Amino acid sequence: MKLHEIGEFGFIDHISEKFKHLLLPEYLGIGDDCAIIPYNEKEDYVITTDLLIEDIHFLKNRITPEQLGYKSLAVNLSDIAAMGAEPVGSFLSIGIPAETEVEYLDTVMKGYHELSQKYQVPLLGGDTTKSIKYLTINVVVVGKCRKGTARLRSMAQNGDTICVTGFLGDSACGLEILLHHLPETKNNLKLIRSHHLPNPQLKEGLWLAQQPEIHAMIDVSDGISSDLVHILKASAKSALIDLDKIPVSDTLKRVILVEGWDLDKLITSGGEDYVLLCTLKAGSFEPINTAFKAAFDRELAQIGKIIEGEPRINWTKNGKPQLLNQHGFDHFST
Amino acid sequence: MKLHEIGEFGFIDHISEKFKHLLLPEYLGIGDDCAIIPYNEKEDYVITTDLLIEDIHFLKNRITPEQLGYKSLAVNLSDIAAMGAEPVGSFLSIGIPAETEVEYLDTVMKGYHELSQKYQVPLLGGDTTKSIKYLTINVVVVGKCRKGTARLRSMAQNGDTICVTGFLGDSACGLEILLHHLPETKNNLKLIRSHHLPNPQLKEGLWLAQQPEIHAMIDVSDGISSDLVHILKASAKSALIDLDKIPVSDTLKRVILVEGWDLDKLITSGGEDYVLLCTLKAGSFEPINTAFKAAFDRELAQIGKIIEGEPRINWTKNGKPQLLNQHGFDHFST
Repeated sequence: MKLHEIGEFGFIDHISEKFKHLLLPEYLGIGDDCAIIPYNEKEDYVITTDLLIEDIHFLKNRITPEQLGYKSLAVNLSDIAAMGAEPVGSFLSIGIPAETEVEYLDTVMKGYHELSQKYQVPLLGGDTTKSIKYLTINVVVVGKCRKGTARLRSMAQNGDTICVTGFLGDSACGLEILLHHLPETKNNLKLIRSHHLPNPQLKEGLWLAQQPEIHAMIDVSDGISSDLVHILKASAKSALIDLDKIPVSDTLKRVILVEGWDLDKLITSGGEDYVLLCTLKAGSFEPINTAFKAAFDRELAQIGKIIEGEPRINWTKNGKPQLLNQHGFDHFST
Repeated sequence: MKLHEIGEFGFIDHISEKFKHLLLPEYLGIGDDCAIIPYNEKEDYVITTDLLIEDIHFLKNRITPEQLGYKSLAVNLSDIAAMGAEPVGSFLSIGIPAETEVEYLDTVMKGYHELSQKYQVPLLGGDTTKSIKYLTINVVVVGKCRKGTARLRSMAQNGDTICVTGFLGDSACGLEILLHHLPETKNNLKLIRSHHLPNPQLKEGLWLAQQPEIHAMIDVSDGISSDLVHILKASAKSALIDLDKIPVSDTLKRVILVEGWDLDKLITSGGEDYVLLCTLKAGSFEPINTAFKAAFDRELAQIGKIIEGEPRINWTKNGKPQLLNQHGFDHFST
């Protein structure tokens, strides 16, 4: 059997089961944005890792080395944000084809350093090695959070309001623009920037985790059609999502109008926006949103509701049910 | 400038400098077998990571998937051992070519699980993704040790006795046997086994770190000609090594006799033996060795001495100085 037949998540579930008996009770293992290991009496550590391989996750001639360094760290910081934690250190493993120029790597490190500096995250270690052909980057980030405040995928409750902390679809549209070699107009460049330089929502994640009304949380890396399903499976719940309520940037609307692309697909299955999706206790949206607005000068968007039922998303548009592919980007789907 | 011109370690030093100011005082960053981050009042965490890429670190047709899974974890556990720590969890990122059979991956995981089980190390997380061509494996291991007991490369002192905890050269000879397609005799198979299934010296590392007479420690991954120099640079010391005193297995002696290979090169620059090299307070070898023998039913081998001077190894054989290449396997040397 080939791997794409069981899929990435099938394989992970399969592995996870075999190691469960080794897990101590104060640890959280496979199955959330980060693992959790105990720190001191008041705090826990959270740990996440992401592997990026040239020609799978990035194309060297479409992303600058500085953007690549920045993004390699950003996607991991986003997982830290999704736990409601703050980063304390990173590890970088890099597999380098022999013909690579030191100047190229220096510029990768410049982008990595810029984001490290922004959030004061020291580089604590890693590994440097040769690769035959493809530049290969594995980043690990360790974070910390107050004990018991980490927001897990399993915490969604019946009646919860589903919110996102920012626009969806910009990054996916930026990728389409790159793949279609569209001209570098102001709008196109803005969306490409969203794709290459995502802003990990660390402050938002930390703030949200301090509100007891926030239940489950995840970062939108594969698209909500996939990421929300992780929450639904872990919480054994179903969801209603109103496509009309998903926040879309004016830039995206303008580009979609010109190119005629499928907006719903981009905003649900596009991925890589790295905003946070969270579920809020029923009836708490107004006060939480008011406080969020005071803190971040923008609003949370309520896009749907957690309900009892099978772990799948029930989409509506203009008040009518819609059928959409339930799966986001599964790396092994054909 | 190409990377092989400054080398792997040159690039790491270069990166390390730029992140130093972000490091909190209770952290240990780049430059040892593991990084150290604080745990509770009595303990610290240590963290290490290694990236293995097909056709660079392993050949799929020369190592079974089970051995590959085992070894991917073993090389990281060896870094934990070198700090005098014990493992508490691992993370596995794996980049998988599309045509890979699930059965192959299952067998990789079987080897990984076997060693995890042996040392009771839970798999806490990771990343699973597609790769264009080369199977790519990044492992992270987190360990813990009593606060202040981690043995660093910088701790060697003038007059220290230099010891190793096991035979050198077996693994490198095993690799040569594989590369030369030699017949699978009993001796050859034993050395190939040393290469594929190294035994991380976790119990030995933990024991050694409990002895106050043990100063610096490192695991022998690249060969002592390279690994000992890491200690010498970090401690600003020089070393005398007597080639006649390096412990060599009878199996290796027999194979060398038949094949006519260079024994000194194999035992100094071969690497991948994953025994521990440590430095002991002057005059403490006898009592420490007696206690080590009682605990592990074998002896430590004293192979040389730390002296004042430039960070390089002064080799002797039959009482005469020897000139050897000072560098072990540097991944970017030509």
